[in-house]
Amino acid sequence: MASSTPEQNRSPEVRRDPLNNRWVIFSPARAKRPSDFKSKSPQNASSNSSSSCPFCIGNEHECAPEIFRVPTDPKSDWKLRIIENLYPALSRAVEKDGDPRCETSCLGYSDRVVKGFGFHDVVIETPVHSVQLSDLHPREVGDVLLAYKKRIEQIQEYEFIKYVQVFKNHGASAGASMSHSHSQILALPVIPPTVSTRLCSTKEFYDQTGKCSLCEVQPKDLLIDEATHFVSIVPFAAMFPFEIWIIPRDHSSHFYELDSEKAIDLGGLLKLMLRKLAVQLNNPPFNFMIQTSPLQVTDSQQLVYTHWFLQIVPQLTGVGGFEMGTGCYINPVFPEDAAKVLREVNISTHM
Amino acid sequence: MASSTPEQNRSPEVRRDPLNNRWVIFSPARAKRPSDFKSKSPQNASSNSSSSCPFCIGNEHECAPEIFRVPTDPKSDWKLRIIENLYPALSRAVEKDGDPRCETSCLGYSDRVVKGFGFHDVVIETPVHSVQLSDLHPREVGDVLLAYKKRIEQIQEYEFIKYVQVFKNHGASAGASMSHSHSQILALPVIPPTVSTRLCSTKEFYDQTGKCSLCEVQPKDLLIDEATHFVSIVPFAAMFPFEIWIIPRDHSSHFYELDSEKAIDLGGLLKLMLRKLAVQLNNPPFNFMIQTSPLQVTDSQQLVYTHWFLQIVPQLTGVGGFEMGTGCYINPVFPEDAAKVLREVNISTHM
Repeated sequence: MASSTPEQNRSPEVRRDPLNNRWVIFSPARAKRPSDFKSKSPQNASSNSSSSCPFCIGNEHECAPEIFRVPTDPKSDWKLRIIENLYPALSRAVEKDGDPRCETSCLGYSDRVVKGFGFHDVVIETPVHSVQLSDLHPREVGDVLLAYKKRIEQIQEYEFIKYVQVFKNHGASAGASMSHSHSQILALPVIPPTVSTRLCSTKEFYDQTGKCSLCEVQPKDLLIDEATHFVSIVPFAAMFPFEIWIIPRDHSSHFYELDSEKAIDLGGLLKLMLRKLAVQLNNPPFNFMIQTSPLQVTDSQQLVYTHWFLQIVPQLTGVGGFEMGTGCYINPVFPEDAAKVLREVNISTHM
Repeated sequence: MASSTPEQNRSPEVRRDPLNNRWVIFSPARAKRPSDFKSKSPQNASSNSSSSCPFCIGNEHECAPEIFRVPTDPKSDWKLRIIENLYPALSRAVEKDGDPRCETSCLGYSDRVVKGFGFHDVVIETPVHSVQLSDLHPREVGDVLLAYKKRIEQIQEYEFIKYVQVFKNHGASAGASMSHSHSQILALPVIPPTVSTRLCSTKEFYDQTGKCSLCEVQPKDLLIDEATHFVSIVPFAAMFPFEIWIIPRDHSSHFYELDSEKAIDLGGLLKLMLRKLAVQLNNPPFNFMIQTSPLQVTDSQQLVYTHWFLQIVPQLTGVGGFEMGTGCYINPVFPEDAAKVLREVNISTHM
């Protein structure tokens, strides 16, 4: 920190995110200039070669079973595949109508255990090892999004599944064990804590104001870019530096409501955001997560205040004991500064 | 994963932690044998030399201001010091009786911002660069714990401080930027989300049963070791492999209630747990956090169900999009297996 910067003259602030009901400390004393905030572990070209990669076209026999492929014709080359995870976190050896409670190894805590039923799938986004998601055409990114939707609609048939988490880990330090571009779908027998909290918080906001929290977001200084059906912003209380939310303009509770036109529109904006992060932050490892509603949210009372979005988090800072202990995060970059940095870089999404 | 192990024949389970109200997936398909679960980034002898380390004795002039030292006599050599953090997350330029709301940069969200008032201190646990906390005598570890207590009691004077988080980051991948053994104290103007959740959950348990959740813990298969005033266990729904909780046997809401006798007793058990982790897991990076009650919890109604504990988390697995998105964790090691591995290693704490 050789020279004083505008950020360092600002006072720290503590901001609350109304969706996650979570406090974030914005701490200019710990900041570099936002433009200097480059990744130290960039994810450049793939680290394992395509000949040894089970996700590459031609190596399908090395993978766990396929669920479906696009295009569906088994005789034509595939553009993307959804397969089972070889090391699934949850078991698909399901007892569809069985008792979800565990009888074994509950150590006397039977009310605190459910069987590990669920699905854990892998979406191989491209047949080509060296291609990343952000290299694809917006229409092809849209095809990946529509594959998520199709798989969620299949999983929806299983009554014991409560929530489906779609996520992508890009880069080893973001949790990716394979360098070939892929994302994951984990279907859970419980509603996860962030989703329960979001349901409570957005209900509370609706009860107080009669409005949906995300329909009411005023992008202003936090806006990065806009598409026909989506806006991308840095959230007011971003937990992580350069965190991005892509939000549907029109109220929509479930990600699976996405149609083909909106999928291409979102595909273009997602591609643009990933390329902006790569250019401004030295191709950082990142995660994205689709934050949607529990499958059982279908009645009109809940649908009015639940609104899905896509969250992108570049991995630039580590998490330590403070974050683990408190659930609070320290973010050295003010969201309005991060939004400006991302807004101002010009990227063409046409290839 | 060359050979089948007992863990791999078990089914996955999803367990709920009643204190954090959080689901954890125990996934044997993703497990190695617990005894093979060694750190790949061990924290061996210090990486920067003592001559350039501002925390070493003799280099005090390179540090931010001292708050106090032990022993307090400025003429004798110190055994530990508490100093200000040179890059504090929160500002001690406090307005003790001022309006905690922020007037600036609230982007129209004034109800979601408070000023970044607070304290961010560093506890230098030893004057010697090569000594780690677990190398100290139980009595000396107790002195570090009593220094935390003394500092919390000083901070308690400030009405706007709601919670004090004591934590230690050991090793670069656990968030430590300095290799000289130290811990941190962050005093916050808000009650953090994990603490609010814990208050709600333990109140609910008390309302249902008339009992304190932590007084009711039945260690059984989860027990690692015991001291006169504390027990150490792997929690039933441990978020992380080999996570450890050290819990006071007698009901106690606030860490600052620790007396000198109990500090030595806890010092010995903490030292033993850190050495067990180091031996069994190849000296892993780790965090520990003191999980206590908000300072304002002083009335008898709340004191009956709040019970502090010390949480230790070795850094063995990364966090990816699933954990960020859901707040659920995937733990490949069943807690009863982790407890057995830690229970069975014999370590002498006498030096």
